Amino acid sequence: MPLITFQPSGIIIDVQANTTLLDAARRAGVEIDAPCGGKGTCGNCAVRIVSGRVDCESLGILTQTEIEQGFVPTCRTSINDSDVVVEVPDQAGRFGGQFSDDDGIELVDAALLPTQADCRPLTEKINISVPPPQKADGLSDLDRLTRALQQRLGQQDIIVPLALMHYLADILRAGDGNLTVTLITEGPFAQTYPSNSNSGINRRYRVTAIDGKDSTGRHYGVAIDVGTTTVAVQLVDLSNMKVLSTCTDYNSQLSCGLDVISRIDYARRPDRREELRNRVLRTVNRLIEQSARRDQVEHFEIACAVVSGNTTMIHLLLGLNPEYIRLEPYTPTVLDVPFFTASEVGISINPPAPVLTSPAVGSYVGGDITAGILCTDLCNDSDDVCLFMDIGTNGEVLIGNREFLLTCACSAGPAFEGGGMKCGMRAAHGAIEKVEVDPSTGRATCRTIGQVSPRGVCGSGMISLLAQLLKTGWIDAAGKLKRSEPSEAIQIDGRQAAYTLVTAKESATGRAITIDEHDIENIIRAKAALYAACALVLKQVGMEFHNLRKVYIAGGFGRFLDLDAAITIGLLPNLPRDRFHFIGNASLAGSRMALVSEKHRERQYRQARRMTYMELTTEPAYMNEYTAALFLPHTNPDRFRQKQIE
Amino acid sequence: MPLITFQPSGIIIDVQANTTLLDAARRAGVEIDAPCGGKGTCGNCAVRIVSGRVDCESLGILTQTEIEQGFVPTCRTSINDSDVVVEVPDQAGRFGGQFSDDDGIELVDAALLPTQADCRPLTEKINISVPPPQKADGLSDLDRLTRALQQRLGQQDIIVPLALMHYLADILRAGDGNLTVTLITEGPFAQTYPSNSNSGINRRYRVTAIDGKDSTGRHYGVAIDVGTTTVAVQLVDLSNMKVLSTCTDYNSQLSCGLDVISRIDYARRPDRREELRNRVLRTVNRLIEQSARRDQVEHFEIACAVVSGNTTMIHLLLGLNPEYIRLEPYTPTVLDVPFFTASEVGISINPPAPVLTSPAVGSYVGGDITAGILCTDLCNDSDDVCLFMDIGTNGEVLIGNREFLLTCACSAGPAFEGGGMKCGMRAAHGAIEKVEVDPSTGRATCRTIGQVSPRGVCGSGMISLLAQLLKTGWIDAAGKLKRSEPSEAIQIDGRQAAYTLVTAKESATGRAITIDEHDIENIIRAKAALYAACALVLKQVGMEFHNLRKVYIAGGFGRFLDLDAAITIGLLPNLPRDRFHFIGNASLAGSRMALVSEKHRERQYRQARRMTYMELTTEPAYMNEYTAALFLPHTNPDRFRQKQIE
Repeated sequence: MPLITFQPSGIIIDVQANTTLLDAARRAGVEIDAPCGGKGTCGNCAVRIVSGRVDCESLGILTQTEIEQGFVPTCRTSINDSDVVVEVPDQAGRFGGQFSDDDGIELVDAALLPTQADCRPLTEKINISVPPPQKADGLSDLDRLTRALQQRLGQQDIIVPLALMHYLADILRAGDGNLTVTLITEGPFAQTYPSNSNSGINRRYRVTAIDGKDSTGRHYGVAIDVGTTTVAVQLVDLSNMKVLSTCTDYNSQLSCGLDVISRIDYARRPDRREELRNRVLRTVNRLIEQSARRDQVEHFEIACAVVSGNTTMIHLLLGLNPEYIRLEPYTPTVLDVPFFTASEVGISINPPAPVLTSPAVGSYVGGDITAGILCTDLCNDSDDVCLFMDIGTNGEVLIGNREFLLTCACSAGPAFEGGGMKCGMRAAHGAIEKVEVDPSTGRATCRTIGQVSPRGVCGSGMISLLAQLLKTGWIDAAGKLKRSEPSEAIQIDGRQAAYTLVTAKESATGRAITIDEHDIENIIRAKAALYAACALVLKQVGMEFHNLRKVYIAGGFGRFLDLDAAITIGLLPNLPRDRFHFIGNASLAGSRMALVSEKHRERQYRQARRMTYMELTTEPAYMNEYTAALFLPHTNPDRFRQKQIE
Repeated sequence: MPLITFQPSGIIIDVQANTTLLDAARRAGVEIDAPCGGKGTCGNCAVRIVSGRVDCESLGILTQTEIEQGFVPTCRTSINDSDVVVEVPDQAGRFGGQFSDDDGIELVDAALLPTQADCRPLTEKINISVPPPQKADGLSDLDRLTRALQQRLGQQDIIVPLALMHYLADILRAGDGNLTVTLITEGPFAQTYPSNSNSGINRRYRVTAIDGKDSTGRHYGVAIDVGTTTVAVQLVDLSNMKVLSTCTDYNSQLSCGLDVISRIDYARRPDRREELRNRVLRTVNRLIEQSARRDQVEHFEIACAVVSGNTTMIHLLLGLNPEYIRLEPYTPTVLDVPFFTASEVGISINPPAPVLTSPAVGSYVGGDITAGILCTDLCNDSDDVCLFMDIGTNGEVLIGNREFLLTCACSAGPAFEGGGMKCGMRAAHGAIEKVEVDPSTGRATCRTIGQVSPRGVCGSGMISLLAQLLKTGWIDAAGKLKRSEPSEAIQIDGRQAAYTLVTAKESATGRAITIDEHDIENIIRAKAALYAACALVLKQVGMEFHNLRKVYIAGGFGRFLDLDAAITIGLLPNLPRDRFHFIGNASLAGSRMALVSEKHRERQYRQARRMTYMELTTEPAYMNEYTAALFLPHTNPDRFRQKQIE
């Protein structure tokens, strides 16, 4: 079998002929980003062939210079019978930056949060006393445990998994029958989402942990938000609903595609589907590990988890084939995910612990949205019509009140999360979040998060920059940089132009922070996709923007967003500013509410059932709205003139 | 760490100081029998120290000659810091012989067997058609599957495990929605035995297999009898209840103790408990493999299993601590074992397949008995009082009719299964099953099973021999061989005497087949234990043997037993011969009935609930009965004079 050597790491692997270079790298553990999911459309996975012969299917995506230097896209290049040495370029342009791990509770209207009276976590931990074994009463240890539990809980079925029976005899005797039992308190286990059961009447308890002492004081759970770009985990003390810590990181699936479509493409082969599953589990488990260590909580003390994510992310997490999500008629394997155990899913908490997945509504409106609306009046059966926007790689929009809920999704791309741009980064320390442009020189003054030296631009920084460039006339409505007047900040290179925000000298990384017209186009496309989705759902219900009482903006970047700038570029409608509410990572906050409160779990489920899902990919009106929005702020700028409303 | 070399295999292993030689051998994979379970009471695990120093705790059990030759009992000998070479003697006296793999159906009264109308196997396999995915109907693949199943089965909860969801999307589309689904049809899954549920009203179906074509014609199950000495597996075609094959072998736990008490002793340490679990699983899975291959059935086509065994065997199979079974107040971890999946238990059939374990009644009356009585009128609510005896290493006795069921157990030891004797073997080809003794010469004429050259003596052969020796006066009522008159067949060696059944020349193995007075004592103890148990339960209900309408004799050796001989030695009471019914491996036959028929599962469970369990170990009257029965036939031979009854 031919030997492949990866430089500069020097890792060598032997692979069968016809293996793609990308697969060989994966198997060797060499990280190569394939943002398009291995479709051969982005060229980012290119490496340089130092020696040896390979079969390259298509070079079209690479520049002439790259081709001359010997670059090939790894996803389209297969190994034949020759040994090969390849050089993997430094992919320093990958997402950078730390995450700010705040819990986001203060962003949610306090009236929507669970009160102490609502505190009914997914699992219940109770201390019981099991009477000692009696001669000739004919009761086994399991019978004694079951009876003691039924005395407390009523004549319900009690299920004890085999793994917990193994040491039951010893635990019962060691502590003289003093036990702490963790149970699933919600409806039937291994069942679709709680209220979906046809058998609401008779509950069933599943024991998930047995402890030979009183450990009721230590009862923890995790809320998990699995985003296309980032994953966030929040460790919660279930006894008082307090957030102990929040940890966030990039989804390690990122190197297999930047958006859900690329991931679905990548997941076509079962081995790659397994790779994606392992990657996201690695991220989730690392974050759980981090928060658990920070708060000195043991894995087995984490008694339950609520996971929210878009439909594709949940399919990949569960190892399900996501292919049919993107093929007509867009039917996913599962929308209402049943309860599974942590060990089935692969999440490193107490293995028999229940994992509840937020219910999805459609192929592109997932559990992150049904969790997210727990942070809005949309879950409150209010008369007021509200709009909820989740701005991430996938953009979701939901409009409604007590009478209707209409939702749809659009692909915004990763631009708002700092993805897909050379100098993009997450809204974290060192990210440029606000920009002022000097009208006469065109030069920028930047403010970074944490007031430290700039490392890159986050989504809100890009929006701020575009708004400033537009206002000062340094870009036009099509997003092209001004060529008619020279500026130090603008570099023209043939047909392309780029804008320097921070020079190499001022930057924390020693590299200049620039954006080019391609980056600007990405932002315009992203804002157009979102704006068009909002415009379409409004049209669908015969309303206009000014009919909206509240506009909720969720998503990692939301809280740093300059409203005026967003309105200036046409991302958000021009409404009175007090109608906008930034609610941060609503998917995570909603998951936490579902984790701790039965009322909120039921509320989430009820609202999910009410939602009407609109598939935009097959909606011709959407393309019209989108095209019209591909300008700054819009082909019809009247829409963004300040109107006096009410 | 010191190195231990085992001769003659030459296997070398390094172990920590203080490890026992037995543990070292286990870890090295060197088979050494420890029939007493490692308590140091049998001496069978002795090996010879060739070189090196060891610490031996007790040599008491070995003979002076053995000690002089350098033998040590491995279970009581630990390694210190020196390298050691040990010689493992050839343990050729281990159980030998093939098993006859008949299905035993003809032994059971046809009226008790499930009829075609009763055919409701543990799992159900149905062919359904799932309508194709529809745009905008909001249904996932799982929803479509669930609905199609509910249309067939009614509005019940349908549970699909994650492992089956993985390929659901592809299976649904590949066969245009034509699916064969295997489900658990009985009550709730992961629940105690069917009728034990408090929620009888609302069924729940758990899908255990999904197939993308019509495979309803291939639906198989296994009945498994886990005995202390032997394990039997029967592969059953669930579509027509036909037995495809029966495979039997020794329980590979045998080298860790011959009876349940030795096994419990051996299982004290968690690592040894795990070893015992793995050993019995190895035997079970090998037998499943054998029968599946024989009938060209794939593992994944075996949709369910029913397991029966005594309480200790079931604890060891499930990895539960059996220690408290033998400690007052004799409380096992579990009596009514919940449903588990095959993968949880470790049985190599379709991993999500349900494994149903026959319910136990007490520490020493297990599921083998509640399965066994399905083969008797005791399950039939008859007016006639019947007695059921299961003659194995553990002897169980059950008496009753429609009004009462009283049961108890005694330890007969493995003698009736050919265990614990130098020339003992299972009732298989080559086993001496019938003996004639010449009154004048004392020499034996033997008949073997299969009319082949003799290899050893099985339990029924021993009983036949003892009856003949007793009748001809070559042994006395205490079981001592006649020393006053010489016989070629009797060899006197000091205080011990032995009897040669077959000379080395006539034997198939080239070794003489002999029994000594120790072997005879074993048989006497075994028959005394059983007889005493029967006598005691009769006394308890104020009856005598002649009140019994039927006496059922179950157990591997039963069908080859010479009734007259058994009565002669006092194993069975002297009743009209037509009252005796040999029903073979009733535990296996009963398991098969439970596997295929819901009626029989319910019947088994109902009868199990009715049984009153008597703990003999704490019953002083038992010891009196036992001591009185330690003679041939009994201290009160009047009991065995032929009476005219009725």
